[in-house]
Amino acid sequence: MTAPSAGWLVVVGLGPGDDALVTDQVRGVLAEATDVLGYIPYVARIAPRPGLTLHPTDNREELQRADHALDLAQQGRRVVIVSSGDPGVFAMASALFEACEGRESLPDIRVMPGITAMLAAAARAGAPLGHDFCSINLSDNLKPAALIEKRVRLAAEADFAMAFYNPRSASRPETFGRVLAVLRAHCEPSRLIIFARNVSLPDERLLTVTLADAREEMADMRTLVIVGNSATRRVGPYVYTPRAAG
Amino acid sequence: MTAPSAGWLVVVGLGPGDDALVTDQVRGVLAEATDVLGYIPYVARIAPRPGLTLHPTDNREELQRADHALDLAQQGRRVVIVSSGDPGVFAMASALFEACEGRESLPDIRVMPGITAMLAAAARAGAPLGHDFCSINLSDNLKPAALIEKRVRLAAEADFAMAFYNPRSASRPETFGRVLAVLRAHCEPSRLIIFARNVSLPDERLLTVTLADAREEMADMRTLVIVGNSATRRVGPYVYTPRAAG
Repeated sequence: MTAPSAGWLVVVGLGPGDDALVTDQVRGVLAEATDVLGYIPYVARIAPRPGLTLHPTDNREELQRADHALDLAQQGRRVVIVSSGDPGVFAMASALFEACEGRESLPDIRVMPGITAMLAAAARAGAPLGHDFCSINLSDNLKPAALIEKRVRLAAEADFAMAFYNPRSASRPETFGRVLAVLRAHCEPSRLIIFARNVSLPDERLLTVTLADAREEMADMRTLVIVGNSATRRVGPYVYTPRAAG
Repeated sequence: MTAPSAGWLVVVGLGPGDDALVTDQVRGVLAEATDVLGYIPYVARIAPRPGLTLHPTDNREELQRADHALDLAQQGRRVVIVSSGDPGVFAMASALFEACEGRESLPDIRVMPGITAMLAAAARAGAPLGHDFCSINLSDNLKPAALIEKRVRLAAEADFAMAFYNPRSASRPETFGRVLAVLRAHCEPSRLIIFARNVSLPDERLLTVTLADAREEMADMRTLVIVGNSATRRVGPYVYTPRAAG
C-alpha cells in the first residue's frame, strides 16, 4: 500500500457574484481541485468536470463542512471550500480555523482572498469607504444585540463610515431597526445610507437615501448597507467620502 | 469635423501586487483603454501596447492626476486610473470624486474593485478579520493625530479587530508609536498583532507578535498592520478571530 499523496485545503472567495470578479489565483486552484465544498448557491457556480466531486451543503452547517474538508485533505484529496465575497470577512475561513481546534494534525491550509461585498457595493456607488470605516455583521447569531448596538454607537462616535453585512435576517428581523435607531440618536438626519442588493448580478439594485428617509424594509439578507461618515456627500450621480477628515 | 466618440473613465484596483490577484473585469477594461494614469510603480505593472499611452506620475499628485484623467475622458479618450489594492480604500477613487466637484459636466465614470491589502494580508495570516473590524489610514496627512488616536481608542472599546494602512510614513514616523501606546492603554498585553509587508510579492514578510512585543520599527509604509480583537487566537501556524463575540 502506498502512502496517499499530500492533500491540501484552500478556502477561496468567489467575489459578490459576477464571474468577472473572480481572481486568476482562485480559478487556478479550482482547476486543480478534486473536491469543492460550500453552501449550495456558491457550489452551483463551479462547473462540473471529470475528477471533481462537488459537495453542496446547506447554510448554517459551517463547522460540519469544515470538518469534512479537513478530513478529505488529510486523506490526500485536493480540497477547495468556496465562499462568496472574501472568505475571511464573515464567511468560511474563521469557521474552518475553529474546526482546526483540538485536531492532532492539520493539512496544508491556504486562504485566497476575494472581492468582498462592501468593496463591490462601494465601487458601484462611488467611493463611500474612501476614509476610515468599519465592517459589522448584523446577523451573527453568536453575538448579542446589545453588542451590535454598542459597536454602532462607538463607530458613530468615531465618525467611521460603516458597512453592515447581513443587515436583516428572517430569524432576527428587529436588529436593523434598532441599528437605525442608534444611528438616528448619534448622526445628523442628512447622513447618507446606501442599500446595495445583489451587487454585480443582473438584478443588482442600488438605493441611496438620507438617514431621515431610511426604513428597515429597505434591507434584507442579500443587501449590503453602507452608512457614510459625517463628510460623505454626492457629486453628480456618485456618493463618496473625501480623503480629509470631516 | 465629427464629434469625438464618447470617452469614459474607470478607476481600477490592481490588488496588492501579484498579477494573479487582478480580476478579469479589470483586465478587460485595461485592454480597451487608450490612456492609463497612476502612480509610477502601479503604471509600471501595465504592459505597453500600440494605441495605449501610459501616464505615470509621482505620488501626492492625486488631484492633478484626477483632473488630467477627467479632461482626457471628456476629449473622448478611454481612460483608466490604476490604484493598487482596491481603488475605494485609501486610494484614487475618492481623489477622483473630489476633482469632480465644481465641474460643469462629468464623463461616464466607473469604479472597479480590487483585492485591498488588508484582505490579502488577512488571508496570508489565516482569518484575523473574521469578526467585526475597522480600517484606519494612519498616514493621512489631512487628518490630525488626535483624531487617529481617538478612533483607535474607540475601536479598542468596541473590540473591533483593526487594519492599519500606511502605518509609518517618513513624514510622520511618530504616529504609529502613539497608536501602539493607545493600544497598550486599552488592550491586554497578549493581544495579537500581524505585520504584513509586501503581501503577495516575492519578498513578502509576515510577522505575528503580541502587543507586549510589538515595536514601531516593525512597520513601514509598505506594511499592513492587523490588530486582533480580544478573542483573536492562534491554531497551528494560523491566526484567526472566531465568529462568536469574544
